[in-house]
Amino acid sequence: MKRQKQYEQYISQMRKIADVKNALAVLQWDQETYMPRKGATRRGEQMATLSELAHQLFADESLENLLMELSGADGLTEVQARNIALTREDFEKNKRYSPELVRALAETTNKCYHAWIESRRQNDFRFFETELDALVRLKKEEAQVLGFKQHPYDALLNEFEKGATVNWLDELFNDLRTPLRSLLSSLMEMPQPKTEFLRQHFDKDAQWRFGLELLKQMGFDFEAGRQDISEHPFTTSFSTGDVRVTTRIDENDFSSMTWSCLHEGGHALYEQGLPGDQYGLPSGEFCSLGIHESQSRLWENCIGRNKAFIEHNINLVRKSFPQLNTVSPQHLFAAVNVVKPSLIRTESDELTYHFHVMIRYELEKRLIEGSLATKDIPQFWNSSYKQLLGVDVPDDKSGCLQDIHWSHGSFGYFPTYSLGSLYAAQFYASMNKTHSGIAGEIANGNYTTIQRWLHRHVYQYGRSFTSNELCNKATGEPLQMEYFVQYLTAKYQDVYQF
Amino acid sequence: MKRQKQYEQYISQMRKIADVKNALAVLQWDQETYMPRKGATRRGEQMATLSELAHQLFADESLENLLMELSGADGLTEVQARNIALTREDFEKNKRYSPELVRALAETTNKCYHAWIESRRQNDFRFFETELDALVRLKKEEAQVLGFKQHPYDALLNEFEKGATVNWLDELFNDLRTPLRSLLSSLMEMPQPKTEFLRQHFDKDAQWRFGLELLKQMGFDFEAGRQDISEHPFTTSFSTGDVRVTTRIDENDFSSMTWSCLHEGGHALYEQGLPGDQYGLPSGEFCSLGIHESQSRLWENCIGRNKAFIEHNINLVRKSFPQLNTVSPQHLFAAVNVVKPSLIRTESDELTYHFHVMIRYELEKRLIEGSLATKDIPQFWNSSYKQLLGVDVPDDKSGCLQDIHWSHGSFGYFPTYSLGSLYAAQFYASMNKTHSGIAGEIANGNYTTIQRWLHRHVYQYGRSFTSNELCNKATGEPLQMEYFVQYLTAKYQDVYQF
Repeated sequence: MKRQKQYEQYISQMRKIADVKNALAVLQWDQETYMPRKGATRRGEQMATLSELAHQLFADESLENLLMELSGADGLTEVQARNIALTREDFEKNKRYSPELVRALAETTNKCYHAWIESRRQNDFRFFETELDALVRLKKEEAQVLGFKQHPYDALLNEFEKGATVNWLDELFNDLRTPLRSLLSSLMEMPQPKTEFLRQHFDKDAQWRFGLELLKQMGFDFEAGRQDISEHPFTTSFSTGDVRVTTRIDENDFSSMTWSCLHEGGHALYEQGLPGDQYGLPSGEFCSLGIHESQSRLWENCIGRNKAFIEHNINLVRKSFPQLNTVSPQHLFAAVNVVKPSLIRTESDELTYHFHVMIRYELEKRLIEGSLATKDIPQFWNSSYKQLLGVDVPDDKSGCLQDIHWSHGSFGYFPTYSLGSLYAAQFYASMNKTHSGIAGEIANGNYTTIQRWLHRHVYQYGRSFTSNELCNKATGEPLQMEYFVQYLTAKYQDVYQF
Repeated sequence: MKRQKQYEQYISQMRKIADVKNALAVLQWDQETYMPRKGATRRGEQMATLSELAHQLFADESLENLLMELSGADGLTEVQARNIALTREDFEKNKRYSPELVRALAETTNKCYHAWIESRRQNDFRFFETELDALVRLKKEEAQVLGFKQHPYDALLNEFEKGATVNWLDELFNDLRTPLRSLLSSLMEMPQPKTEFLRQHFDKDAQWRFGLELLKQMGFDFEAGRQDISEHPFTTSFSTGDVRVTTRIDENDFSSMTWSCLHEGGHALYEQGLPGDQYGLPSGEFCSLGIHESQSRLWENCIGRNKAFIEHNINLVRKSFPQLNTVSPQHLFAAVNVVKPSLIRTESDELTYHFHVMIRYELEKRLIEGSLATKDIPQFWNSSYKQLLGVDVPDDKSGCLQDIHWSHGSFGYFPTYSLGSLYAAQFYASMNKTHSGIAGEIANGNYTTIQRWLHRHVYQYGRSFTSNELCNKATGEPLQMEYFVQYLTAKYQDVYQF
């Protein structure tokens, strides 16, 4: 009885913290969607205050006492014990940050972000270098503070993907590089599918309605969420009953918004599917960034770029965009799966995407271990792009200045994008092994089996397991890059007809 | 130097509190505009947490110490000294509420709100009576806790309109009742202007665009604010750089949204016009609810229902709504100023509106002093409506259940609506006395003189003075109801052509 009462107190404190963090998320969402220009300065201050309050509430002594008393205590269920253990881990980590380090990180990140904006405006990395270098030094300090066994970059990776290490990623990316390069070489020798018809004028309202139709089809609950417009698409959640996606519409490109909707929709289904009664607790949170990304990529790529999906939706496509009336499902399927090495990560195809990530991973690792100097980033970037993708980087804006992540202080984030694709392929292979009719269901716009599988193997566990534990439980083995290679190979055989 | 440093600390603490309150306002705005249905429960909890945090931050001992040290201290400017005095007043008041009373008020209000919803559904006051009675008892207790000199209702009035008392309002409303009743009797004997053309189909998008045009015309800064749709129109502010109005569109009534836009626009101009560098301090806040309402009514009525305004906008009206092509400015002016006793406060005209308020004031006063029992509300309400407005109340929904205020625990709020009209008329008279060309400017869609007057006499002072002090400074005398009577009489002479 005493334990359960203490656990109730723990829940109540955790929910207060979650309330503040979710309020912060509402303010961020509003900033990206509806906030007028002149609201920016005060909004920044308001978000900083909420952020500070959430941090203070989590550093509270009474919470610490509860965690000490409940750690390893009898009378807790398995889920409860795991929540306590995970929260205690977070609490200990939180305590390692001195107020000085927190402030230095916040201030340097802020400066770095503005320097990044300016350097993009000038199209010159040198306007970013000094501020970025200061941030890299701080991130090295953070890695030391957080602690690691083998490589300082491991400490940063862990913030986004618990359990991921340089050792593991080096091997994974090495194993993946070879088959992807060989697949790419073969595809580059084949005749390329036509894609011109994707680039013509597509009515804005028709695109908006089409996107909503796709979200509905996936099972997005519009009573527990909504879609709005923002400059960069994103998904955010304030509770399982209020999950929001955003999109942007390119009137000259049909594919841009469509597959972005499916991508964000995949993130959103995960958030809507988490156990709502575990609000504020680890068991009610997403597992890791890699698993989150697996959900978006499963829907965007494994399902959304699947021929069966396109066949099912061809009538909706034609009804929405009469200019595509003469395009066959096979043509559309091929066009949205074309492989072509390019400069910009976010616009790249499912195959070469991972070379973009590998380059960033390699670069970050070297920065953090100290074997690459900040000033040498452009040179490293450009030569890596030439070597791995065969493209010449014309300027910094299309090169090492293209992503916002470093300016936010997110080092160790990029690898989770690739992990997402790999987990997605393995999940998709596993569900197809157990359920033979999935392709047929997709061809009928029926996602029941997929949804049930995801609920049962991913959504329901929240953050109770690490990504690799979850993968093991769901598919019977840890992450194997072979599923992804097989998935891509099979798809491109159909796309390129070899 | 020490004083200024302490004052800086005071500012920094006050801004944190403001940040939390403004974050709460963002969550409320989102709840009314965009939040999906299933987000409601957790959103309620999130708002309660922010509310509690704001309360805690304001009860902080370090803030109390600062206020003690800075109260009456040398080395502060006049504005600074006033801020300290006002904040100390708020602080002392805040301290009087025991945690038990705060909790009891929150819980009872919540129950009362749901009982009100249910009683409206059932169209029967009896479903509201028990909960409302409990709230009335608590509000009596609150009045004792807050303290008062003569009448317990004074304590509640003070929460919305500092300095307002039963003595003062009794006299004011008595003085006002006689000329308004006599004006009403004369008008009821005259032929009534035609209003049918206001009620036909008006395109939704055309109304939306028309409303935005009016806001632009008034000087609403769309880089520091926006308009959205909600069930009940309101204005909210997160800083002077982010002020939001909402509206609703009735496709069968042209006047409903139009004058609502002007009303909310008036509130919004006040919020955008407050001194932005005084964010979080009394000198950066609105003066009182009565003064806030004076701003909305000045724009809605004194300006928006002015013949010159309608003459200036007749072309925009006709362009937006071709079905009004044959309506003359004089007809439109008469139609939107028609007087007709009716049941619902929010739909009533500028004259009979005040009878609605007087009835509520009288009723609340008696409830709080204990001379009227909660169970007798419907009877008191219905007989007052018969006596003052000459209308028979057919049921509770069109009677004593029509307003949300009591279910929110807002006793003492209604009088500020009437005060708003009176202040607006006095301000308008005063600016016309000093500047002879205002009507001519309105006829040209030029509001420069009006805007300057409001900035100079109202906006710039924030909450540094009470409403009556502000009125005195601005117009040379305290509030006089004669200006309102003169304003109405002059208008109705033109409307009814007597």
